[in-house]
Amino acid sequence: MKKHSFPLSKVYTLLEPGPVVLITTSRKGVPNIMTQSWHTMMEFVPPLVGCVISGRNYSFDALNSTRECVINIPTVELAKQVVAIGNSSGRKVDKFAHNGLTALPASQVQAPLIAECYANLECRVADTRLVNSYNFFILEVLRAWIDPAVKDPQTIHHRGNGEFMVPGATIKLPSHMK
Amino acid sequence: MKKHSFPLSKVYTLLEPGPVVLITTSRKGVPNIMTQSWHTMMEFVPPLVGCVISGRNYSFDALNSTRECVINIPTVELAKQVVAIGNSSGRKVDKFAHNGLTALPASQVQAPLIAECYANLECRVADTRLVNSYNFFILEVLRAWIDPAVKDPQTIHHRGNGEFMVPGATIKLPSHMK
Repeated sequence: MKKHSFPLSKVYTLLEPGPVVLITTSRKGVPNIMTQSWHTMMEFVPPLVGCVISGRNYSFDALNSTRECVINIPTVELAKQVVAIGNSSGRKVDKFAHNGLTALPASQVQAPLIAECYANLECRVADTRLVNSYNFFILEVLRAWIDPAVKDPQTIHHRGNGEFMVPGATIKLPSHMK
Repeated sequence: MKKHSFPLSKVYTLLEPGPVVLITTSRKGVPNIMTQSWHTMMEFVPPLVGCVISGRNYSFDALNSTRECVINIPTVELAKQVVAIGNSSGRKVDKFAHNGLTALPASQVQAPLIAECYANLECRVADTRLVNSYNFFILEVLRAWIDPAVKDPQTIHHRGNGEFMVPGATIKLPSHMK
């Protein structure tokens, strides 16, 4: 794999700007993908990520039973696949084959990495206290991968109703914020 | 106020793309502001927003005791103020006066709206179960306001280390995602 290991202490720089992500699971050897953008960083190190996985999603049962997933971050080249994955269910289609995506083995979890995504975060469920009330899982990132060739990732940001924003200018300000 | 009331069912379109926000509180009549981007939508209607307010922030005690705040969404014209607010503490400075921002009364909560922000979400704390473990508050949006003149908001998205991305192109795809 051309990807490099990425420092866990910098995972927040990938998720904090709010990209749409593709969450992969694997249950009884069957991988699946869902499109998601209701997530937030909750801690720097170890990186904790809170995310809502609706009980209507086929991925809910896989995540709830296996306690493992991968957060894959796509760029705009994959926009059509991102939407197609969000519009279909793993109950009916193999989302990897159907969308021409490549599943690669992860190092810490059974769920696969999506090769075509520029970053991949291998996660284990760390806290389920809010799953019953809000379908809210807290994930710990165990290992992170990044494609070092992608310098200015054109991530996708959902504005609702099929509208997505992609990054424009980057501005640099003397922030002391981590 | 030139702002219009904004439908609660569309609040997710404001927060889901991941903008940096300014959270205002008011305790014993003293307003304060903090810069924040660790937030996620958790429900459409009523809109629920999960967000991490570190115990190191002066705002933590105000939110924890009053159970009210406003999530204000700035655009790039306010980038310097956003960073200055993140780099200072309400223990020491009046962040409204110091940054030339205008506090307007909210309709449902004691915390003020920031007039210069294009959108404002009046919130009440709805669930504190994860406050002790993660400083994670679940907020219910009670009322939302928007400046109807801002058609393509140039929100600010934190990439870490003082780098911020602002929106570029918007693409439209036939998503069935809400």
